[in-house]
Amino acid sequence: MKLQKSDLLDCHKRIIPYVHNTPVLTSRLINELIGVELYFKCENFQRAGAYKMRGATNAILQLSNEERSKGVVTHSSGNFAQAVSLAAKTLGVKAHIVMPTSAPKIKREGVLEYDGIIYDCEPTVKARQKRADEISEKTGATFLHPSNQTNVIIGQGTAAIELLTEQPNLNAIFCPVGGGGLIAGSSLAAQHFGKNCKVYGGEPFEADDAYRSLQSGKIEGNDSVNTIADGLRTVLGDQNFPIIKEHVTEIIRVTEEEIVAAMRLVWERMKIIIEPSSAVTLAALIRNKLNFQKQKVGVIISGGNVDLSNLPF
Amino acid sequence: MKLQKSDLLDCHKRIIPYVHNTPVLTSRLINELIGVELYFKCENFQRAGAYKMRGATNAILQLSNEERSKGVVTHSSGNFAQAVSLAAKTLGVKAHIVMPTSAPKIKREGVLEYDGIIYDCEPTVKARQKRADEISEKTGATFLHPSNQTNVIIGQGTAAIELLTEQPNLNAIFCPVGGGGLIAGSSLAAQHFGKNCKVYGGEPFEADDAYRSLQSGKIEGNDSVNTIADGLRTVLGDQNFPIIKEHVTEIIRVTEEEIVAAMRLVWERMKIIIEPSSAVTLAALIRNKLNFQKQKVGVIISGGNVDLSNLPF
Repeated sequence: MKLQKSDLLDCHKRIIPYVHNTPVLTSRLINELIGVELYFKCENFQRAGAYKMRGATNAILQLSNEERSKGVVTHSSGNFAQAVSLAAKTLGVKAHIVMPTSAPKIKREGVLEYDGIIYDCEPTVKARQKRADEISEKTGATFLHPSNQTNVIIGQGTAAIELLTEQPNLNAIFCPVGGGGLIAGSSLAAQHFGKNCKVYGGEPFEADDAYRSLQSGKIEGNDSVNTIADGLRTVLGDQNFPIIKEHVTEIIRVTEEEIVAAMRLVWERMKIIIEPSSAVTLAALIRNKLNFQKQKVGVIISGGNVDLSNLPF
Repeated sequence: MKLQKSDLLDCHKRIIPYVHNTPVLTSRLINELIGVELYFKCENFQRAGAYKMRGATNAILQLSNEERSKGVVTHSSGNFAQAVSLAAKTLGVKAHIVMPTSAPKIKREGVLEYDGIIYDCEPTVKARQKRADEISEKTGATFLHPSNQTNVIIGQGTAAIELLTEQPNLNAIFCPVGGGGLIAGSSLAAQHFGKNCKVYGGEPFEADDAYRSLQSGKIEGNDSVNTIADGLRTVLGDQNFPIIKEHVTEIIRVTEEEIVAAMRLVWERMKIIIEPSSAVTLAALIRNKLNFQKQKVGVIISGGNVDLSNLPF
C-alpha cells in the first residue's frame, strides 16, 4: 500500500492534541562556523524527551477500543519504552515494556514514572522478541515495534511535517538512522511537503548497517555496535527499508570523535541538551559541509535523554 | 534620581535591536513536582549566553561618539567580560577586559572570540579595580561596572520587562543575587510593569552577603565564597543596594547540594543547559515552595555558560 499525503496529514491531525509542536531553533554561530543555514527541529523538547512519542501515540490511537482495553507491549532499552509508557498512560491504556537487564537505570526509572510495567529479559534481539510475544499471547496486548510498523513510521514523520511547515524551502533534511523509523517517516514527509527537499541520514561507522544495506540492496546487520549513540544500535526493518531505499539520498557515516564534538558544540553554543544519537546528524552534516554551503538544511534533533552521571566530556 | 517607567521603556527600546527576546519556557513536570506554576525566562539563550548582554549593550549605547571612540574597560572573571566584548564588537567599540589569572580558560576564550583585549591581574577586588583604572587613565576608555551603574542595572531589568509583558499576572519573580544588578533591575521592572508582583532573591549560604546586608541595613562582604555558583561570589554596590532594600521582599539562601540538585532537575527535565548561578534561583523557590503553591512565579534563568569538562554530576 502506497502512503498518500492524506495519510500523513490525518496522522498529524490525530496526534496533535497529545504531542508538542517542538520549536525550530537556529544558531548564528554554528551557521557561521560551517557555512550552512541550519534549522534544528528540537524533539529533545518533545514529551518523554524524544520524537518516539509521535509514533507511539499514533499507533495506540489507531487501536480499536477492544484492543486498547488489552494494552500494548513493546521491547526497547531506550526512548521508545518511555514513549510507549507515557502515550499509553495518557490514553488510559496499559503498557507492558520488555527491557534488557543491561538497560540504563535512568531509562528504567522513566518507564516506571509513566506507569509502564517492566519485564526483564536477556540483552539479545531474540530474547526480547520472545518475551514480548509471550506477554502478547498471555494478555492479548498489541505488539508495537519501535520502528517497523506503518503507524509508527508515519507518526515519526510528523516532526519533519512541522519543520517543513515552518521552513518550506529546505534543500535537505538530516536524520539519524537507527531502526529506520524516523528517517523513513521523514523521507515520506519531505516527498509530500517539501519542494525537492532531499533527505540524508547520519550513522556511526561503528553501527553502519543502514549504509551497508543501501549499498547491498538488502537489510544488513551489525557484527558489533560499539558506539556512544545508543539509539542507533538497531537495524532496519522490512517495512521501512523499501521507503528508505526509494527516498533517502545518502547515508553519511561519522566517527565517535565527530559525534562527541558535535554534541559538545550544540551543548556549548545552543545551551540545549541533545543525546549522542542526535549529535550524529549534525556530525554527518559537518563532515559533508562543503556540499551544502549556503543551503537551508533541517536537522532533526531526535532526543535529549542522556545519563548526566556518564557524560563523554 | 528616581527612575521612571519611561526610563526602563526607553532602555528596552534602545537595546532591542542588539539582544534576543529570549523564550519563556514552562515544564509541566516541574510544575507538578513543586506545585507552583513556573515561567522560566531563558537568558541562557541570550547572546554571549547570559543576561549581562543587556546591561552591557545599554551602557555602551549611552556613550557619546567621542567616548565610544576611546573604548570601554571592565573587570570580570565571567559573563560580563564576554558580554562587554560582544556588545562592544557589535557596536564597533574597543573593549579592554581585566581578568584575574584564575578565570576559567573557557571564559578567556569567549572574550578573545569576541575580540576583547585581555589584561591579566591578581585575583583580588583591589587589584582588578586598580588595573582597570590604569587602563582607563591611559586610553580614556570608559569604565563599565558589571552591576553597580544605573545604565547597567536598568539594562539587566529588561529581561523582567519581557517576562511580565508575556505573563502580566505573575505573583512573584525569582532572581539570583550576585553583584545585585539583575535583582535591582528586575525589581524596578516588577514595580513598573507587574501587578503587585513581588521579587525574591536566591543566594548561596556560602556567599550570603546580600542576605546579611538586608538584615543589617548596610552592604556586607563575604569572608569566603566557597560556592559552585561562580557568578554570585561578588557583593552589592551603593547604586543597587538602595533599590534592593526598597523593592526586594526577601532573599532566600540555599545549600550547595540544593543548587546542584536544581541544576540537574532543569538539565534532565527541561533539556536546557543552565549554569549553577541560575540554579540557585530555582533552588530557593523549591526550598520555599509551600509559600507559593498554585501561584504564578517567574524564574530568571540568568545564564548557560558552564565548563562541560568540570561538571558537578
